[in-house]
Amino acid sequence: MLIIISGPSGSGKGTVVRSLDPSRNYAMSISVTTRKKRDGEVDGVDYFFRTIEEFEEMREQGEFLEHALFVGNYYGTPRSYVNEQIALGKAVFLEIEVNGALQVKEKFNDAVLIFLLPPTMNELRQRLISRNTEDPETIEDRLRRAREEIKLIDKYNYLVVNDYVDNAVNEINTIIEAEYLKPHRNMSLLENFEEKTNAETILF
Amino acid sequence: MLIIISGPSGSGKGTVVRSLDPSRNYAMSISVTTRKKRDGEVDGVDYFFRTIEEFEEMREQGEFLEHALFVGNYYGTPRSYVNEQIALGKAVFLEIEVNGALQVKEKFNDAVLIFLLPPTMNELRQRLISRNTEDPETIEDRLRRAREEIKLIDKYNYLVVNDYVDNAVNEINTIIEAEYLKPHRNMSLLENFEEKTNAETILF
Repeated sequence: MLIIISGPSGSGKGTVVRSLDPSRNYAMSISVTTRKKRDGEVDGVDYFFRTIEEFEEMREQGEFLEHALFVGNYYGTPRSYVNEQIALGKAVFLEIEVNGALQVKEKFNDAVLIFLLPPTMNELRQRLISRNTEDPETIEDRLRRAREEIKLIDKYNYLVVNDYVDNAVNEINTIIEAEYLKPHRNMSLLENFEEKTNAETILF
Repeated sequence: MLIIISGPSGSGKGTVVRSLDPSRNYAMSISVTTRKKRDGEVDGVDYFFRTIEEFEEMREQGEFLEHALFVGNYYGTPRSYVNEQIALGKAVFLEIEVNGALQVKEKFNDAVLIFLLPPTMNELRQRLISRNTEDPETIEDRLRRAREEIKLIDKYNYLVVNDYVDNAVNEINTIIEAEYLKPHRNMSLLENFEEKTNAETILF
């Protein structure tokens, strides 16, 4: 199962995803990037670090669920890594901005889209200000963009208000548990049930 | 929100619904019936007891989400009672056999359909035998019908295996919690969010 955690810049996607319980059968998607490795970052853990040529080759081979250019560097979500983790029976989390999320949903129809909403616009503004990394104009830009993104909420499967990180994480866990109860995620159970049924019919 | 608990005869629908935590914001749908009131039964609690004429009048007025004739008596699910409870903000549970469930889903597209599955066909047979109310032929009839009903599982939203009642109840609670996180069930939250947004925009 692929779970996409998305929402406006400042909604707290990163914090929420880092707070997910690693003892559950969860895996985090790892992005491919062409940006330089920073001190302490590990290839295959923080990112898959690749050259621009390697990245473009992967893109041409259709190996990305989504990709984007950001401040002069490429970023992409590798389909193969996601598929490997899903094959291991894991719930794979992808933390991604809204446009990328809708791109992935198109290629991966079974993905579970979760929109992370800040409690109010005012709270969102405060969070962006307290980051202390963006000038007022950029912050207003992000707020305008957030308003546009919120209009796309009906394309999502679930809506989680990130008032407190623990609440948001609990709600995400609940969503995963409920999604595992969908009939189409239990076809093997049903096949076994039918097998048992047939075996019984013969014995009867 | 309307939740339909359905599944084959012997899957334990009644036991599971009676085990739901009444302190949650849950309500049980009450059926209309033309059968005689038994000792201890209360009108408006166990059933709404009505005459055949009254029942037929209700049916003609389209007041039933579904209705059926069973051993010479009519049974129906009144739309008005369900709507009243939903208007009170309750999650309304309806316990009903498979054909009725699919009838209701057609009229109430937003209903959450939960299929209650016994762990195995053998367990289902044991449960039907231990009821001690049906002859072997009737039991085999019910098992055949169960096999047909299980084929309709993909029309349901969720599948809950009723191995232990407590597990099934927990899974149903999880489903309800997740359903409350669907965007279309949070339109008022989003409207308020937009209002706040507009108020802020003006103030800014």
